[in-house]
Amino acid sequence: MARFFVSKEELEQDFIVLTGQQAEHAKVLRLKNGEEVYLCDGEGQQCRCTVSDVSPGQISLVVRDRQCADTEAKVRVSVYMAFPKADKLEHVIQKATELGAYEIVAFPSGRCISKPDEKSLKKKLERWQKIAASAAEQSGRGIVPKVITVDSYQAALDRAAQADLPILFYENERAVTLRMAVEEKGFETVSLMTGPEGGLEPREVEQAKLAGLRICTLGSRILRCETAPLCALSAVMYATGEF
Amino acid sequence: MARFFVSKEELEQDFIVLTGQQAEHAKVLRLKNGEEVYLCDGEGQQCRCTVSDVSPGQISLVVRDRQCADTEAKVRVSVYMAFPKADKLEHVIQKATELGAYEIVAFPSGRCISKPDEKSLKKKLERWQKIAASAAEQSGRGIVPKVITVDSYQAALDRAAQADLPILFYENERAVTLRMAVEEKGFETVSLMTGPEGGLEPREVEQAKLAGLRICTLGSRILRCETAPLCALSAVMYATGEF
Repeated sequence: MARFFVSKEELEQDFIVLTGQQAEHAKVLRLKNGEEVYLCDGEGQQCRCTVSDVSPGQISLVVRDRQCADTEAKVRVSVYMAFPKADKLEHVIQKATELGAYEIVAFPSGRCISKPDEKSLKKKLERWQKIAASAAEQSGRGIVPKVITVDSYQAALDRAAQADLPILFYENERAVTLRMAVEEKGFETVSLMTGPEGGLEPREVEQAKLAGLRICTLGSRILRCETAPLCALSAVMYATGEF
Repeated sequence: MARFFVSKEELEQDFIVLTGQQAEHAKVLRLKNGEEVYLCDGEGQQCRCTVSDVSPGQISLVVRDRQCADTEAKVRVSVYMAFPKADKLEHVIQKATELGAYEIVAFPSGRCISKPDEKSLKKKLERWQKIAASAAEQSGRGIVPKVITVDSYQAALDRAAQADLPILFYENERAVTLRMAVEEKGFETVSLMTGPEGGLEPREVEQAKLAGLRICTLGSRILRCETAPLCALSAVMYATGEF
């Protein structure tokens, strides 16, 4: 069923009119009178609505019932990714949103080739947040994952370490598997941290250990920086009973 | 360590010279005399070699020892993907290779928007196989996954059903999870089958059941056609103890 994100205030109305991009989107979906859609506040609340009128540039909806979104993962997984080159972060934001990530945090590290300056960062964050919103609509999420950037590697570690299960993946780790970390204890929040194209520096891995992160392997094959976070996220969703 | 794929015959020599694209690649990697690389026949055999000479357009290697590649997954996972639009198949071939797929099989289904005609297929298959080879080198695979296409949906089902554990993922399946299928019995080969952009038709799902495939969910969120196979592959690699 189609899904649109609206503000908390709009969601409290009994009758809602979508305009602009959302009306465009509704047109693409060829929504007709009497069809059902979901409206969602992006924070876990949603309404089932019926289309009552379709006019050029606007679509009218009548609220049928209110409910909690039931497509959110039981465990909150935060994806921490070192700033990659080109549009790889956009790719990861889109896919991690589909796969159920709670938030996506981008951070700088020693071997990052690309790090947006402060001036371009604001615009980029807006763009990244839009990608997350669009992916959340399409995949039927109840929330829109927040895209966050932090200023330093240490700040990323400190933030990640607040999760019940904070993990950093390192290609030179051989002994400790993700499974060992996951099976160890109960947890409600997880941080999954991965490095940039050139990998993390050994001293950065030591720094992560000191901050309280578990160092784990993702197997014997070398994954690209944009593949590793999505592989880890898929595995954690599987491991925590999502599918 | 850098890795180059050569023919079975070349791998039997004690002294090997790389030219052309591979010499180019060696130049990009800035390989120097005395450094070690792996040569691999793409079928599971590999040699550890030392660089003995670097000249313009060629690099000479001395074989040190022969061994079996140790980066292959214990379970052979075949990824079956309905022909998608645009370059999504290329994306999935690259990522599935990194993640350890044994082979990638593309097939037509009712709602496929794009299906290459026979004329363009030969060229495309060459291109797809090159993408797999390049991803195999970069990720340290011992084999190059074969990229295969089949002519009909039924042919894809019949081929997939030969695996010990053949699974088709369907977004309307709610009860049977991948975990239930994976935990059921021992298996050495798995087929993971996913639909095109518009999803599979209900009659195609029935057809898959008749062919002996298990119908499973990938969770309550709707995954794009290029995300689903990689999510499933990551989860199976995790479930079978790869990381």
